[in-house]
Amino acid sequence: MSSTQTFLDAIANRRTIYDLKQELPAGVKIEDVQHVIQTIVKNTPTALNSQENRAIILTGEAHRQVWDRVLKSITSKDGRKRPTSVRDEAYGSVIFFTDNETTNEFRKKFPGFSNAFNDAAYYTSGAVQIESWAALETLGLGCHLQHYNEAVKAALPLDIPISWRVHSQLCFGAPVKGAPAKDFIDNPVRILN
Amino acid sequence: MSSTQTFLDAIANRRTIYDLKQELPAGVKIEDVQHVIQTIVKNTPTALNSQENRAIILTGEAHRQVWDRVLKSITSKDGRKRPTSVRDEAYGSVIFFTDNETTNEFRKKFPGFSNAFNDAAYYTSGAVQIESWAALETLGLGCHLQHYNEAVKAALPLDIPISWRVHSQLCFGAPVKGAPAKDFIDNPVRILN
Repeated sequence: MSSTQTFLDAIANRRTIYDLKQELPAGVKIEDVQHVIQTIVKNTPTALNSQENRAIILTGEAHRQVWDRVLKSITSKDGRKRPTSVRDEAYGSVIFFTDNETTNEFRKKFPGFSNAFNDAAYYTSGAVQIESWAALETLGLGCHLQHYNEAVKAALPLDIPISWRVHSQLCFGAPVKGAPAKDFIDNPVRILN
Repeated sequence: MSSTQTFLDAIANRRTIYDLKQELPAGVKIEDVQHVIQTIVKNTPTALNSQENRAIILTGEAHRQVWDRVLKSITSKDGRKRPTSVRDEAYGSVIFFTDNETTNEFRKKFPGFSNAFNDAAYYTSGAVQIESWAALETLGLGCHLQHYNEAVKAALPLDIPISWRVHSQLCFGAPVKGAPAKDFIDNPVRILN
């Protein structure tokens, strides 16, 4: 198959998989997850090559502690279900950031594009998050993306720089079962010539 | 090679290529470009499956007219260089949008997540833009991403819905030469366990 089709298939096969076991699929190591995330964080483009994306991978006790703190920050019984399942059923979580210090440096250097740099941090982080999700599922992992940003920020180990803005959490593990069928709208991409 | 590595290579090989010819590489048709963009627009995840991404592909006279109007909206001689080269040297351009009407519908339906839906439109659009860029370069195209959003919005054919918010323009053609080497910062993704 062409590399283009392999790339597109990875994107088309990416799904939200909530039902996870606290292990990695056979033959996959946590360093494989790290290789995927590192390659994507390094090579995803940023406005004027500002390279503001950051990520850490939590697993084992670090994952358990962070999600236990997130859980304890939530009062409603319904609201506690998801972080409980992340803590007890996901093998790990990737926390995605952009470094506000870097974004702000570029905003000051190029004041005419100040708002554009803020938007660009969201564009590039979105690409890193969604590419990582697709790539980890090609390794056989199941993943779902969460946004407990404030609670995660407060729960992280203290050596994470304060300037790192939390964008999302990609929770991963061995999938217990796949995702249900997905509905698509009619949304044609037209060629105008 | 594994599909994971093929996916990562496409991301790592994506570069900004400004020097373009007004043609497609041998063996590539505009319908191949359409297949890539359609697959990515369809399958890139959106908040609560809101499916707010939209895209059109401009080529030929439609591309020339839009970029000629963008060019005429710019007064500085330096500022006119890039849109001139896009008009005269790119084979086409993909215009990426999200539909504000869709985003706003979901903001109203889920008022507790109103700001989150706005951020999510940027995340998903960023992923669509950057995935499309990487995928088109696997086909042998050269691409660069532009943000003449206001000027493009004003220059588009009148049948594009007013609620479609312009995020960027991916300009493409046959590459005349590759991109120079890129500098990377030291940015390790750590595993905490």
